[in-house]
Amino acid sequence: MHKPQVLILMGSENDLPMMDEATKVLTEFGIAAERHVASAHRTPEKVRDLVLNAESRGISVIIAGAGFAAHLAGVVAAHTTLPVIGVPLDSSPLKGLDALLATVQMPGGIPVASMAIGKAGAKNAGLFAASIIAVADKAVREKLKQYRKDMAEKIEQQDKNISA
Amino acid sequence: MHKPQVLILMGSENDLPMMDEATKVLTEFGIAAERHVASAHRTPEKVRDLVLNAESRGISVIIAGAGFAAHLAGVVAAHTTLPVIGVPLDSSPLKGLDALLATVQMPGGIPVASMAIGKAGAKNAGLFAASIIAVADKAVREKLKQYRKDMAEKIEQQDKNISA
Amino acid sequence: MHKPQVLILMGSENDLPMMDEATKVLTEFGIAAERHVASAHRTPEKVRDLVLNAESRGISVIIAGAGFAAHLAGVVAAHTTLPVIGVPLDSSPLKGLDALLATVQMPGGIPVASMAIGKAGAKNAGLFAASIIAVADKAVREKLKQYRKDMAEKIEQQDKNISA
Amino acid sequence: MHKPQVLILMGSENDLPMMDEATKVLTEFGIAAERHVASAHRTPEKVRDLVLNAESRGISVIIAGAGFAAHLAGVVAAHTTLPVIGVPLDSSPLKGLDALLATVQMPGGIPVASMAIGKAGAKNAGLFAASIIAVADKAVREKLKQYRKDMAEKIEQQDKNISA
Amino acid sequence: MHKPQVLILMGSENDLPMMDEATKVLTEFGIAAERHVASAHRTPEKVRDLVLNAESRGISVIIAGAGFAAHLAGVVAAHTTLPVIGVPLDSSPLKGLDALLATVQMPGGIPVASMAIGKAGAKNAGLFAASIIAVADKAVREKLKQYRKDMAEKIEQQDKNISA
Amino acid sequence: MHKPQVLILMGSENDLPMMDEATKVLTEFGIAAERHVASAHRTPEKVRDLVLNAESRGISVIIAGAGFAAHLAGVVAAHTTLPVIGVPLDSSPLKGLDALLATVQMPGGIPVASMAIGKAGAKNAGLFAASIIAVADKAVREKLKQYRKDMAEKIEQQDKNISA
Amino acid sequence: MHKPQVLILMGSENDLPMMDEATKVLTEFGIAAERHVASAHRTPEKVRDLVLNAESRGISVIIAGAGFAAHLAGVVAAHTTLPVIGVPLDSSPLKGLDALLATVQMPGGIPVASMAIGKAGAKNAGLFAASIIAVADKAVREKLKQYRKDMAEKIEQQDKNISA
Amino acid sequence: MHKPQVLILMGSENDLPMMDEATKVLTEFGIAAERHVASAHRTPEKVRDLVLNAESRGISVIIAGAGFAAHLAGVVAAHTTLPVIGVPLDSSPLKGLDALLATVQMPGGIPVASMAIGKAGAKNAGLFAASIIAVADKAVREKLKQYRKDMAEKIEQQDKNISA
Repeated sequence: MHKPQVLILMGSENDLPMMDEATKVLTEFGIAAERHVASAHRTPEKVRDLVLNAESRGISVIIAGAGFAAHLAGVVAAHTTLPVIGVPLDSSPLKGLDALLATVQMPGGIPVASMAIGKAGAKNAGLFAASIIAVADKAVREKLKQYRKDMAEKIEQQDKNISA
Repeated sequence: MHKPQVLILMGSENDLPMMDEATKVLTEFGIAAERHVASAHRTPEKVRDLVLNAESRGISVIIAGAGFAAHLAGVVAAHTTLPVIGVPLDSSPLKGLDALLATVQMPGGIPVASMAIGKAGAKNAGLFAASIIAVADKAVREKLKQYRKDMAEKIEQQDKNISA
Repeated sequence: MHKPQVLILMGSENDLPMMDEATKVLTEFGIAAERHVASAHRTPEKVRDLVLNAESRGISVIIAGAGFAAHLAGVVAAHTTLPVIGVPLDSSPLKGLDALLATVQMPGGIPVASMAIGKAGAKNAGLFAASIIAVADKAVREKLKQYRKDMAEKIEQQDKNISA
Repeated sequence: MHKPQVLILMGSENDLPMMDEATKVLTEFGIAAERHVASAHRTPEKVRDLVLNAESRGISVIIAGAGFAAHLAGVVAAHTTLPVIGVPLDSSPLKGLDALLATVQMPGGIPVASMAIGKAGAKNAGLFAASIIAVADKAVREKLKQYRKDMAEKIEQQDKNISA
Repeated sequence: MHKPQVLILMGSENDLPMMDEATKVLTEFGIAAERHVASAHRTPEKVRDLVLNAESRGISVIIAGAGFAAHLAGVVAAHTTLPVIGVPLDSSPLKGLDALLATVQMPGGIPVASMAIGKAGAKNAGLFAASIIAVADKAVREKLKQYRKDMAEKIEQQDKNISA
Repeated sequence: MHKPQVLILMGSENDLPMMDEATKVLTEFGIAAERHVASAHRTPEKVRDLVLNAESRGISVIIAGAGFAAHLAGVVAAHTTLPVIGVPLDSSPLKGLDALLATVQMPGGIPVASMAIGKAGAKNAGLFAASIIAVADKAVREKLKQYRKDMAEKIEQQDKNISA
Repeated sequence: MHKPQVLILMGSENDLPMMDEATKVLTEFGIAAERHVASAHRTPEKVRDLVLNAESRGISVIIAGAGFAAHLAGVVAAHTTLPVIGVPLDSSPLKGLDALLATVQMPGGIPVASMAIGKAGAKNAGLFAASIIAVADKAVREKLKQYRKDMAEKIEQQDKNISA
Repeated sequence: MHKPQVLILMGSENDLPMMDEATKVLTEFGIAAERHVASAHRTPEKVRDLVLNAESRGISVIIAGAGFAAHLAGVVAAHTTLPVIGVPLDSSPLKGLDALLATVQMPGGIPVASMAIGKAGAKNAGLFAASIIAVADKAVREKLKQYRKDMAEKIEQQDKNISA
């Protein structure tokens, strides 16, 4: 098995079905990922430890998914200069608007790359992590291009279904 | 000079005019406060250190003010069981709605007491800190009651001005 | 039985399942709480009476939960200098955004400590009340620290489940 | 001078320029109005007293204007069965969205008639109070109809200006 | 049977279960009401006719409920100087925020009294109509007071249930 | 002078500078337009008359701009089957969000074509009216294509400025 | 079969049930429409090709429906001067508010005519397309008028149902 | 001069002062960037050409800034598998909420990494681009770490200023 290149953090076990959209994409691309439940609020030391030694463990990209006042991605970004991708989850009554603003509205100096709220965002986090790795990895680049082609073909097929 | 009972944190020097609304109130009540610029994102270790030893230094309440994706209060709360009061500041184009949701929508387990956005919220943070201290300090309790009376009298005076 | 230290008010019997998240936490910490249905709009005199004599009855903290244009916490705060914690409930079509703004946006002078919308907020209200009481009560302070440790362990266990 | 039929309450002297849009309209219609600064949070007893004896003093309608978490109209409505008109003011960073939701989203049982945010709302509060009084006062009814005609003529004149 | 004093308009038959909250209240108070389906957009002439002759038919108050870009109340108000009460309904994907803003944000000159979104708002529209009629009708005034007392007693009973 | 093909309505003379963005575009395309101040709320009969005879006067498209609870476009659409373009204006404290929702969220059956809030929307209303007329008018179609080319060239020039 | 005058694009097969509200209306009016699944993001070249040759194929109006950050209508409008109607769909956790703003807030120069969110908007897109075609097609104009009459009669019937 | 590794696109020359926050950061890190004005709506072909040959020209990351219904980043992402960073700009009356949702809410399959609204977001776009390049470029990685240290020192200095 390859050494993990992507670290996937989530604030609670309940976020697993959402966040596994990211894992699925990465697995499809042959990129090893490490998943952890670690909460910015309930286990700040664990988050800090996982992030502080991520680079030395060979991690290239970190994905962090959380709901409510989603601080996880920002807290991760505060402890590393690795690219951090945030996934705002819709687990509160405000349907993820809170998590989105808490993830994307980072002040100047510490960037977080926010994806869309929920499942679509988690999937895109996996794809975006792959695109970062692809900058220096030609094989992943080719797989991304193939993925796009497959996606386009699916749309093409859907189009045939409705115009048939 | 008394030992500080309240620790006031803000994410940037620019937040000082806002956050000094809190300091002013505390000074008025004879409660010593310690002010620090410390950013959840730019100086996470400083925040952590200030908070981890706050209790042992005699701090009873922490006030944290920040704008944008305001994580400061939540990050502080993650490192202490002291009561943490959050003040969302309106320094971003979204006029503080982002800071409000990032401050108040804390997930179950780690509470932050959110005040209103901006100046009014900073002032109320000072008053709320005083009310917490007043639970075990009769002198502060009396001052709070006097403060209310003075405020009511001001309204009474305003009322006379307009009905005169 | 101990004399109640926390007064929990809610606007309607329907709010009970939400607000009992607060009661549960307090019970766990051995803090006696008194629950009342009392509406800022439908029974203003009852609210006023409950609040005006709260301090003399030995109450240290008041928790108030309400939905829609949630005035309860603000009305309570107008009648006391005890710390007041507001819980905005998501019982209206706007999913609690109305209750949140009506609870948190208090004008300068009369603070209300707002928690998150709904269940998470009610639970945190209980914890925050405990943290206020803990300022002068070492036993509660220790229980709060233990609670944090237990919570962290649960996350640690969840982490083991997904990485197993 | 006539006995006042309308009671106009505002939370602060700063609200006077806004709220006088209501007074101006009522004066124009020959309806006597009584203005008071009285805050739901800072002088709750004053609000209560003004409202509890309003009916016996001959008041028919109450107008209440406030900003931030605008509880004034709701608190007034809790103490009277007279028609209460609320004017949400845009004095907070959220531009009156907070005041609007805190005014209009009253739970079932205690109605408040909300007008638009700010100046337009204050003016309409005066007109709506007049329309309530007009139900049993033919003279006011005629004046309202004349007011409408004058307004239509002004639009007609504006139309001529731009098509000239 | 009494001549109807209140005209209740709704944009579609689907709004009936919501709007009948208003009818129920009025019936309880012995105030006769006339219900019509009439759409500001689909049957503008019908709305205009119903409103233009409302006053001469003895109508004192008009209630208008609509969802989406709810223009009904505003269009009604444009054709009459009778008091118009608007009920924004939550029939669109935006959960009534659209209907609320389209109802309440009337420009200066033509007031609409907006109630809360949905069922609570419809009920309150009935109560507010009653309070307008009560200005000149002592019997209705007494019934309103009794209604308040009954409501308070229900809360009192709920309070007993939970503290028992 | 040509007979007007486009009718431009606005709720108030204050809207003229905004709405003239539409007039300017139409003039540039040689499409005659007729401007009127006419308010859905203050002069409903004038709106109705202008719209009911628009088709017979040779009007092909109607543009309606209004702020606050912008009912104008919807009211116009209720009286005609001609294409109606709505321009939500940002004249209220809510910065046009109210006008946008009141314009665009039309219920099924009566369409209004909403443009963006404010100046950009008014300009696009002119362009969209031209594109409707262009469906059957080849000369306008060619002018629209030239307009696009000119716009693209301006961007090209801007690009040269910054890369120079 | 007639040559299609309207091109209906949607971002995914899942949007079909929504978007067929438009097709149904057009069929009812005897206007031939061509449906395609084509995504602004997943098949940009397909969208471009369909749009670039639309005019030469005899298309007069394009309808584009999409959810999330709905770019489809704007991307279509960038490639044609034909009138483009956008339908924001509520397929994301934000209930279509994202799709609405992404569709309607087009910058000056490239108009998109936005309809309401979801089913009502799709139906109105069909009607609005018909009203554009009706500018130069008397038969469609008559059908639109008949449609309005039928709709009014349905409301009339609903009114009879509730007043019976 | 180095070959540009980052392509910075903006929808209009007016966006230059905002977007140059990104350029400044990249220059500071010795990363060559290429700036272009290119609009998704007004010059779609130019955007397409710039993006389609970006990879072959040696571009590793694309930054796209736009206001209103900001489609630029999404349109760019549709044409490349390179990582695309979106900067929502606050140039419309909605203060960038429209641009934020149009940038971040990308459907599953085509990721865009959204930064905060406005200036802070543009600066962070530069930093995030640098962090992507740093994955395979040790020198940039070291500069990023130094940048963080400098930033922390500035905060430390600010802290000294206020506690002095």
